[in-house]
Amino acid sequence: MPSARVVDVSESQRQPIHPSEASVLGLGAMGSALAAALLDAGRSVTVWNRTPGRATRLVAHGADAVGSVREAVLASPVVIACLLDHASVEETLGPVAEDLRGRTLVNVTTTTPGEARELASWAAVHGIDYLDGAIMAVPSMIGAHTGQVLYSGSRAAYETLLPMLEVWATSEFFGEDAGRASVVDLAMLSGMYQMFAGFFHGAAMAATMGMSAAEFTARQTPFLAAMTEELADYAKVIDGGDYTVPGQQSLDFSDLSHLVRASEEEGVDPSPIAMVQELISRQVAAGHGSEGFARVYESLRADR
Amino acid sequence: MPSARVVDVSESQRQPIHPSEASVLGLGAMGSALAAALLDAGRSVTVWNRTPGRATRLVAHGADAVGSVREAVLASPVVIACLLDHASVEETLGPVAEDLRGRTLVNVTTTTPGEARELASWAAVHGIDYLDGAIMAVPSMIGAHTGQVLYSGSRAAYETLLPMLEVWATSEFFGEDAGRASVVDLAMLSGMYQMFAGFFHGAAMAATMGMSAAEFTARQTPFLAAMTEELADYAKVIDGGDYTVPGQQSLDFSDLSHLVRASEEEGVDPSPIAMVQELISRQVAAGHGSEGFARVYESLRADR
Repeated sequence: MPSARVVDVSESQRQPIHPSEASVLGLGAMGSALAAALLDAGRSVTVWNRTPGRATRLVAHGADAVGSVREAVLASPVVIACLLDHASVEETLGPVAEDLRGRTLVNVTTTTPGEARELASWAAVHGIDYLDGAIMAVPSMIGAHTGQVLYSGSRAAYETLLPMLEVWATSEFFGEDAGRASVVDLAMLSGMYQMFAGFFHGAAMAATMGMSAAEFTARQTPFLAAMTEELADYAKVIDGGDYTVPGQQSLDFSDLSHLVRASEEEGVDPSPIAMVQELISRQVAAGHGSEGFARVYESLRADR
Repeated sequence: MPSARVVDVSESQRQPIHPSEASVLGLGAMGSALAAALLDAGRSVTVWNRTPGRATRLVAHGADAVGSVREAVLASPVVIACLLDHASVEETLGPVAEDLRGRTLVNVTTTTPGEARELASWAAVHGIDYLDGAIMAVPSMIGAHTGQVLYSGSRAAYETLLPMLEVWATSEFFGEDAGRASVVDLAMLSGMYQMFAGFFHGAAMAATMGMSAAEFTARQTPFLAAMTEELADYAKVIDGGDYTVPGQQSLDFSDLSHLVRASEEEGVDPSPIAMVQELISRQVAAGHGSEGFARVYESLRADR
């Protein structure tokens, strides 16, 4: 019986029943949105999902649903992986490495830069053209061109596929090191999630005096939006590498001990703001208290 | 000799040499800006600073500089304290409590809500009308009406002084509990400082692929500004108290382990993003993984 299956595969490798332009592996909210956008753009699409039943709507829109990863890979020259995480990608694609040979793999699964590089190396060994994608959008933004997808890896793949990739969102290529798109994506999201955590902490502080989250937000939203304008000044100091240039708020002046104390006094978990104070304190302890606030960057950055 | 000093004081209490409308204690960048704005508005101002020499420019603009806190207090019915911290306020005003009796004390020194309440109690004992102010502005914004000063404490003092306070910035009164202005101020700043920390972490990540802070900022600034629009939706869920309402990104989906891992892989200190992940993990561990991201708020808030 196993040998019969091998014969099946080599048959279908020569001649898939329904050849298509792209195969989408993984039909979560994002994978489904990517497949739907391709169908809307008139592309032929084969889809596969680990647990069945997710393809119904896509099939109604013209997708070809198959029951195995191998069939999906063999159906198209371009295979798009939109799976849960890096482990799922390895698990799903490992067994079909030889089937992927000569094809292009576009992996938009969320991974670390290191994992993207690892997959690129694996792809190179198996003769697979590898393009890593980092999606900066929620599923509802796919096809609406309000989001962005960042790519890195095979430049040839990016250039060839661009007309198709642009169906999803604005595309940008960051270079042949497959990890680069992920670095930019994660750097952007890091700022966002920390802003959200700061907002939750502020809302929890405001709640102690009976202010609703909605009322706090009405104040916080325009304030934070305005404060994003400060980032360019910080960037100038960071790139200049001289934290003593005049016109900056000093680290000493930025001491947040009172904020940590206030949070404790009011019974709100101070850990988010205590973390910022810790980054400030590290620089002050190293003797940089009179230098600018942007020096907090030095508490975080990798040694170069 | 001590008795001679007491006689001096009671003399000056009866008749200050140059009576003025307001006295400003503390001539750091902010205190100087507050005094200058009052002078610009045609108010008579007495100024004092612990270390001398800070008043030169203000005196040239018409301020009366005095050498002791007591003289400054006795010169005006309104005393404005803009000192380093709460300890400086206690140290500076403790010895002149009886001189302050019957006067209004406007304390705009950065303090915790608890410290503001403590000072209000002390003021009540000594018959001092106490108004606590929290300045949401940098010195250059004072008098330009781009900033805001939040007040709480004596409503009578606020209402009487409003024409003078409005010289500095837009004013808002938050109630008779003197700690309230500080709560709102610190809640707002908490969000801002955490957003800045997130930006520094993101810039440090981007730097590992050779992207300058300026280039990262050109991407991050509009992205964060756009993302502030999400806060209103989080507030709605928080105020509603039901984290299971549909249409939210789940905590499970918001797992940031890959971001923490990526930061470690690239040699960037992961502590800011690890802190956010810790707040998420706490809720997931408590069985709320399928509920919305806004539930992170529950990891922080005070028990009510």
